[in-house]
Amino acid sequence: MLIDILGYVAGSLVVISLLPQTIKSWKTRSTKDLSLWRYIIYAIGLILWITYAVIIGNGPVAVMNSVGLLLALSILFLKIKYG
Amino acid sequence: MLIDILGYVAGSLVVISLLPQTIKSWKTRSTKDLSLWRYIIYAIGLILWITYAVIIGNGPVAVMNSVGLLLALSILFLKIKYG
Repeated sequence: MLIDILGYVAGSLVVISLLPQTIKSWKTRSTKDLSLWRYIIYAIGLILWITYAVIIGNGPVAVMNSVGLLLALSILFLKIKYG
Repeated sequence: MLIDILGYVAGSLVVISLLPQTIKSWKTRSTKDLSLWRYIIYAIGLILWITYAVIIGNGPVAVMNSVGLLLALSILFLKIKYG
């Protein structure tokens, strides 16, 4: 259904939006303007969200948020590494 | 139900996680390490998600993502202002 596609496009954009930040932080090795707490709280939120999606049996949401978690943890790793 | 609470806590954390970044960028007036595209794509994703939530009649998701959109647009504004 069209409405489902809208939901998937929206969710995908939100997840994909993490990619430019990951690439930028990885290339510039500069992360001082990034908030450490932003990515810590975000990662915890995504872990809970994945748990929620798994429990209610929503595969696509679990997969999308797992990709998001991977990207968020990459940014968090770069932030901790470069300060 | 407990499972609904998990969903709300997860969604709230994801939205609230934008707050430390907004505060940090606003205080330091330094946003060069932030990816412009991250926040442009994110804002578009959130607008679609709010549209999706309104269409399926999910009030809490629409409200949570509207708060997220407001914070994301604030960061985007600061990024455009401070470069």
